[in-house]
Amino acid sequence: MINKGVTSPKGFLASGVACGLKKNGNKDLAMIISENDAVAAGIFTTNVVKGHSLLWTRDKIKSRYARAMVINSGCANACLGSRGDNDAAQMALYASSLINCSPEQVLLGSTGVIGFPLEMDKIKHGIDEAFATLSNQGGFHAAQAIMTTDTFSKEASKTIEIDGKTITIGGMAKGSGMIHPNMATMISLITTDVAISPELLDKALKAVANKSFNRISVDGDTSVCDQLVIMANGQAGNATINSEGSDYKTFVSALLEVSITLAKMLAKDGEGATKLIEIRVEHCDNKESAHLILNAIAKSPLVKTAFFGQDANWGRIFTAAGYSGVSFNPDLVDIFIGELMVCKNGIGLSFDEGKASDILKKDEIVVTLDFKSGQFSDRIWTCDFSYDYVKINGSYRS
Amino acid sequence: MINKGVTSPKGFLASGVACGLKKNGNKDLAMIISENDAVAAGIFTTNVVKGHSLLWTRDKIKSRYARAMVINSGCANACLGSRGDNDAAQMALYASSLINCSPEQVLLGSTGVIGFPLEMDKIKHGIDEAFATLSNQGGFHAAQAIMTTDTFSKEASKTIEIDGKTITIGGMAKGSGMIHPNMATMISLITTDVAISPELLDKALKAVANKSFNRISVDGDTSVCDQLVIMANGQAGNATINSEGSDYKTFVSALLEVSITLAKMLAKDGEGATKLIEIRVEHCDNKESAHLILNAIAKSPLVKTAFFGQDANWGRIFTAAGYSGVSFNPDLVDIFIGELMVCKNGIGLSFDEGKASDILKKDEIVVTLDFKSGQFSDRIWTCDFSYDYVKINGSYRS
Repeated sequence: MINKGVTSPKGFLASGVACGLKKNGNKDLAMIISENDAVAAGIFTTNVVKGHSLLWTRDKIKSRYARAMVINSGCANACLGSRGDNDAAQMALYASSLINCSPEQVLLGSTGVIGFPLEMDKIKHGIDEAFATLSNQGGFHAAQAIMTTDTFSKEASKTIEIDGKTITIGGMAKGSGMIHPNMATMISLITTDVAISPELLDKALKAVANKSFNRISVDGDTSVCDQLVIMANGQAGNATINSEGSDYKTFVSALLEVSITLAKMLAKDGEGATKLIEIRVEHCDNKESAHLILNAIAKSPLVKTAFFGQDANWGRIFTAAGYSGVSFNPDLVDIFIGELMVCKNGIGLSFDEGKASDILKKDEIVVTLDFKSGQFSDRIWTCDFSYDYVKINGSYRS
Repeated sequence: MINKGVTSPKGFLASGVACGLKKNGNKDLAMIISENDAVAAGIFTTNVVKGHSLLWTRDKIKSRYARAMVINSGCANACLGSRGDNDAAQMALYASSLINCSPEQVLLGSTGVIGFPLEMDKIKHGIDEAFATLSNQGGFHAAQAIMTTDTFSKEASKTIEIDGKTITIGGMAKGSGMIHPNMATMISLITTDVAISPELLDKALKAVANKSFNRISVDGDTSVCDQLVIMANGQAGNATINSEGSDYKTFVSALLEVSITLAKMLAKDGEGATKLIEIRVEHCDNKESAHLILNAIAKSPLVKTAFFGQDANWGRIFTAAGYSGVSFNPDLVDIFIGELMVCKNGIGLSFDEGKASDILKKDEIVVTLDFKSGQFSDRIWTCDFSYDYVKINGSYRS
């Protein structure tokens, strides 16, 4: 097993155990701790409805420091009133007593079904066992324990040099339905041993999220439990990054690489997905237009089922752009499936269907729309829509 | 066969024929004519991309009078540049020469795949045959000829009395994917023998559309060919409705009834649908909030697959409301599936799953969210999301 996730940076221990929240007996509770206090930052769901574990983390992370994170799958701990808040507090308190830190230093994540309370006896047993099995090779088990309908666990890491020291960034993430920009049903934790100021860690995370996690869409739904957290414990021993100079840029660039790798894994493992689709828009009038058009296309069930059917139905892509709310001149638009031009100046071309079919058979497909109007380009990653999406989501709660 | 569609009012003839645009040999060209010039009004897609036949109709209807409408299925006549415009003009010209009116009096509709040109030889043969078979019992054939993936043809009619005269309103519509507020992939023609001024006919149509056709959603996509047209030929002999008095109100009320009947048929026949779902929101702060919340819920693939799976997963409904863009207090929200309360003040109840299951097994389900805040209520009709949606749309073009 390669140690490539949250335990790849120095000074992080993790574990993942099965405490019985998942009916199938799979791992469902992850613990990650830093040996010393780590600088922390987070980004949270934009949904008006928010899970109780997420609310705890959003509140406590304001101190900008954390020691540990406990994440359970199998139950979202959401829509439960004061009981949900109390259970979150209990979870943090119980873990903190083992770790020997304050409860406020324990961040939380919960993912799963909404409206059912956490089974606190199971959670406590799980925390006991997770604490007892913490290891600097345990990232893989933690990544497994946060999975819901994910078909594979998601880890990524990257090593760089800053100030003559080796810096490692490691991360894990889970999806895989309710994935859409501005935090979908995802939980991701990124760890690093870099020394950096709280302000710049926060700034780096926000900058990177907008080019990675906020650029994926599985079904257009965003959930009440989505969060991205980063912890930086400084154990690499570099001079603390305090300004936006070259060290900061080197760090951000590596953080972006890890984040994009995780984000693309989330899109590729969208529920029932058989393909990773990258939608690109070019020469839009402004940033907002690019964003609206990408979102409309990536969310369209008609576009996504056509990709599943390997059908070069570019009319649906054009149609989705047309109802995105952006006013553009349709007579300027070129559309490409892979390298193949299928529409020029808004008019369909009689393209080689065999060539289109070869492109659409691939696991990863790039679609490009060129609006030939302004200076703004952007991209989003999404997936196709299959029978299995319906199967998975028709019976998730039961 | 009951004459309940577009030929139920006096003075309208219709026909539907197979001219070879559909590969399976089904009917694909409808013609509807009024014996005399009819007052006409229309509402057209809000999509930036618009089909050529639709653009013809949108332009010609500005005269506020029409004699006939020709609608083909099997080809959208969209995204074809000047060729598409010329084909539309040809279609109207050819029909007008048979009907003996000006081409501008022939309205057009086309629905089907985007980007492939109309086969004009087939269209002309179809128009010949359709003209030869016009009948005052032909509404049913016309309703069949405009179907694409619809599983049943959609007709409705209503008879009222105004000014001592019997007034009939008849209509037909087709769906059934790309259905979403502001004209989805639908074409609907409503005919009536009422005598009414052009201004009031236009006003009545707009008022009614916002409570019927603009309140259905199948998959959130709106197409480039969506239109709703009404023709009123005055053959009932009532004194022309020229003011918004009681006669106008009687007419609007009947028109609404016909429109809601057709709209609900469209939602119920959403591609692959097994259920009609009515989503109601109550006590919202304003009209726009109600609208945004309804749209988010009706579009959510997670909500729609849960209905297909007969799963009382109200958390997804609440989640969709939460990301609708509306800021509401989640701690006030009550949610009902049928009559069964499943969430009170934002907190999940431990409801009777057997009762929920009985409700969810039905063909028609009402879901209500009460925000207990303002004075605004609204509703939308949608359907569930099944394997067959994926099947139908994964291979539509081929």
